[in-house]
Amino acid sequence: MASETAQIILQLFVIFFAAKAVGGLGSLVKIPSVVGEILAGVLLGSALLRGPLGLDDELHVLEVLAELGVVFLIFTVGLETPFDEMKRVGKTSFLVAVLGVAVPFVAGYGLMVAIGETNLRALFLGAALVATSVGITARVMADMGVIGRPEARIILGAAVIDDVLGLTILTIVEALAKGDLNAFDVGLLVVQAAAFVGALMYFGGRVVRRVLGSQNPLADRYEWASPRGTLFIVALLACLGLSALSALVGLAAIIGAFLAGMAFAAHEKRHDLVERFEGITQLFVPFFFVFIGLKLDLGAAWSSIGFALVVTAVALVTKVIGCGAGALSLGRSNALAVGIGMMPRGEVGIIVAIIGLRAAVVTPELYAVVVTMSLLTTLFTPPLLVWAFKRLSEERRSRAAG
Amino acid sequence: MASETAQIILQLFVIFFAAKAVGGLGSLVKIPSVVGEILAGVLLGSALLRGPLGLDDELHVLEVLAELGVVFLIFTVGLETPFDEMKRVGKTSFLVAVLGVAVPFVAGYGLMVAIGETNLRALFLGAALVATSVGITARVMADMGVIGRPEARIILGAAVIDDVLGLTILTIVEALAKGDLNAFDVGLLVVQAAAFVGALMYFGGRVVRRVLGSQNPLADRYEWASPRGTLFIVALLACLGLSALSALVGLAAIIGAFLAGMAFAAHEKRHDLVERFEGITQLFVPFFFVFIGLKLDLGAAWSSIGFALVVTAVALVTKVIGCGAGALSLGRSNALAVGIGMMPRGEVGIIVAIIGLRAAVVTPELYAVVVTMSLLTTLFTPPLLVWAFKRLSEERRSRAAG
Repeated sequence: MASETAQIILQLFVIFFAAKAVGGLGSLVKIPSVVGEILAGVLLGSALLRGPLGLDDELHVLEVLAELGVVFLIFTVGLETPFDEMKRVGKTSFLVAVLGVAVPFVAGYGLMVAIGETNLRALFLGAALVATSVGITARVMADMGVIGRPEARIILGAAVIDDVLGLTILTIVEALAKGDLNAFDVGLLVVQAAAFVGALMYFGGRVVRRVLGSQNPLADRYEWASPRGTLFIVALLACLGLSALSALVGLAAIIGAFLAGMAFAAHEKRHDLVERFEGITQLFVPFFFVFIGLKLDLGAAWSSIGFALVVTAVALVTKVIGCGAGALSLGRSNALAVGIGMMPRGEVGIIVAIIGLRAAVVTPELYAVVVTMSLLTTLFTPPLLVWAFKRLSEERRSRAAG
Repeated sequence: MASETAQIILQLFVIFFAAKAVGGLGSLVKIPSVVGEILAGVLLGSALLRGPLGLDDELHVLEVLAELGVVFLIFTVGLETPFDEMKRVGKTSFLVAVLGVAVPFVAGYGLMVAIGETNLRALFLGAALVATSVGITARVMADMGVIGRPEARIILGAAVIDDVLGLTILTIVEALAKGDLNAFDVGLLVVQAAAFVGALMYFGGRVVRRVLGSQNPLADRYEWASPRGTLFIVALLACLGLSALSALVGLAAIIGAFLAGMAFAAHEKRHDLVERFEGITQLFVPFFFVFIGLKLDLGAAWSSIGFALVVTAVALVTKVIGCGAGALSLGRSNALAVGIGMMPRGEVGIIVAIIGLRAAVVTPELYAVVVTMSLLTTLFTPPLLVWAFKRLSEERRSRAAG
C-alpha cells in the first residue's frame, strides 16, 4: 500500500515535472508549451523510462486524469464563450463544421478504397479523420491572447458541432461493423444529439442565471450547503454531470463540459469561477497532453510511417480546404487561420481507432497510422496556428497603417 | 472507450454530488460536513448502489483521487503553519505525540495478549491504534475557524510527529512479520525519518524564500516557464515531489505534503497559493472522505462488531489519556481538546491493517475490526471536537466576564 502510493504519486510528480520542464524549455525557443508537453509524453513513453517508472501499471489512472484534464480545459473554454456571442458566429461555425467533416471523411474513405482496403476499414479511417480535437487549438489561442477574436469563436463553435457530427458518424460506422445498422436508430441518434446540444446551448445560461443569479430572492439560501464557494461546487457538478450525460447519450464527454461552461459564461460571478478553475486546469491539463505523447508506440509507428505520413497530409489538407471553404466569408487569411485551427485530431481520432481495433475491423497497423496521424496533426497545428494568427495581426496593422 | 469514460465521469459526478448533498443535509442539523461525506461513502458503498454504479471497476482510480485529496488537504494545512509558529508549540507537540503513541500501542498490544492472540497480531493491532489521521480534525478546526489557536497548532504538529513515530513502529512490526528484523536497520530508519522531517522543517521555508522570494534578483527569470502561476506550479511540484519522497523513504505521503506546505507558509504570496489550492482541495477532498466510507464492508463489520466496539473504546480513551497528559501544561480543558483532536485514525490505521492482511498476519476479522475502529474514531471525533472547542470558548468568555 505504502509503496503503491509512493509509485503513483512519484509518477504524477515525474509527469508534471517533465511536462513543465520540457514545456518551459520549448517556450525558450518559442515552441508552444503544449508541443513540449506532448514531447514530454513521448520521452516518458519511450522504453528507457516507461519500464523503470512503472507507467503501464498505472496507465488507467493516468488516462482518467488526462480525460478529466481535457474535460476541465474545455469547460473553461466554454466559460469564455457566452451563448449570445456564439450566436453571432453560429452560421459560419456550422458551415465550417459541416464542410470540415465532409471533405476529410470522403478523402479518407476514398484513399482506403483506392489502395484496395475493405469498405468497412475505409469507413473507419474516414471517421477517424473527422473530429477536431479543440483542446490544443484552444490552449494555443489562449496563450496567444486571441481567444476573443471572431476566428477563435468560430473555431470553438465549429469544433462543438464537428464533434457532434463526428461522433454520430462513428456511431453509424460502429453499428455497421457490428452489422446491426438500423436507419431509425441512426436517425434517432442524430436527432437526440442535436436536441441535447441545442437545448443546453439555448436554456443552460438562462437556468444558471435564474437559479444562481443575484436576482433570485432565494440565492442566499444556497449558502447553507457550504460557507464558501457554493457557485464553484455547483459549476463543478454541472461540468461533471453534463460530461457524463453527454457520454451516456453517445457523444464525447467534452461536449457536455463545453456546454456546462457556456451555461456559466454569462453569470455575474463568472470571474470568480475562472480563477478557481485555473488551479484545477493547471494541475490536470498537462496530464492530457503528456498522455497523448505517452500513447505513441514508437516501434509500431515506425513500421507504418510511410502510409501514416500520407494519411497525415490528407488529414491536414482536407481540414484546411473544408473548414477554410466554410469560413471564406471572413476573407482568405481568416479562413486559413480557421482551417489550421481545426486541423488537430488528438484524442478523438485515437478513440475512433481504439473502437475499430476492439471490433476487430481496424488492424494494429491501421491503428498505429491513426495514432501517428492524430499526434502529427496535433504537433503541426500549434506552430502553423501561431504563424496564421501573427500573419492576421500584421495584415491588420498594415491595413491600419496604409 | 466512450462508455468507460462515461462510467468513470458518471461515478465521479455521483460521488461528488452525494458528498455535497449528504454533507449539506448534515450541516442543516449541525453535523460537520466531513461526517456527512463519510456517510455518503457508506451509502454509495452499500450493496444497493455499489453494483449498479460499478464502483468496484474503478476502485483504484477512486483510491488515487482520495489519496491526492488527503495530500492536497494536508498541504494546505501546512500552508497555514509557518515553522516559526510551530516552534513555539514544538515541545508540547512532541510530548503529546510521544505519549499519544505509547499509551494506545501498549493498550492495544495488551488487549490482544489478554484475549490469547499471538504476539505478532497483538503488535499489529497496537500499531494500527497509533497514528492519528489529522485530515478530519484539520477540516473540522478549519470549518470552526479555530485553526489559529495554540491547541490547533499543537494537534497539527503532534500529528506530524505521531505519523513519523507510527510509521516507524509499522515498519518495525512489518519487519518482525517477515522475520528479518535487524536492530541496525530499525535504528537507521528512525534516524532517517527524524533527519528528513527535521531538515525539511528547518530548511524548507528558507529555501523557498531564497529561491522564490522577491529579494532574489533572479526572481523575474522564473516567469519564462509560464506567464501565470509559476509559484503555484512550483508549489504543486513541491507538494507532489515531497509526498513521493516521503513515501519512498517509508513515511506516509502526507508527511511530505505537510512539510511542503510549511515551506511555502512564510512566502509573501502565500495568500495567492491558498486561493489557487482552494479549487483543487474542494474538488479532491470529498473523494477522500467518501472513500473512507466506501471501504466499509457492512457484512464483515457486523459479524465482529462487539470486539470492534471494545477496540474503538480503547482507541478513543487511550489517545485522550496519552495526548491529554502530554498537553496538561495548557490546562485541563485545553488538554482535553487536544486529546479529542488526536483521536481519529482514519486511513493510517486502515493502511496498517491492509499491510498486515497482505503479510497474512492479520485475519480478515481483525482487518474488519481495525477498519471499523478507524471509521468510528473518525465519526466520533467531529462532534466531540466541536463540543470541546465550544466549551473552551465559553470558559474563556466566562473568565473574561468574571
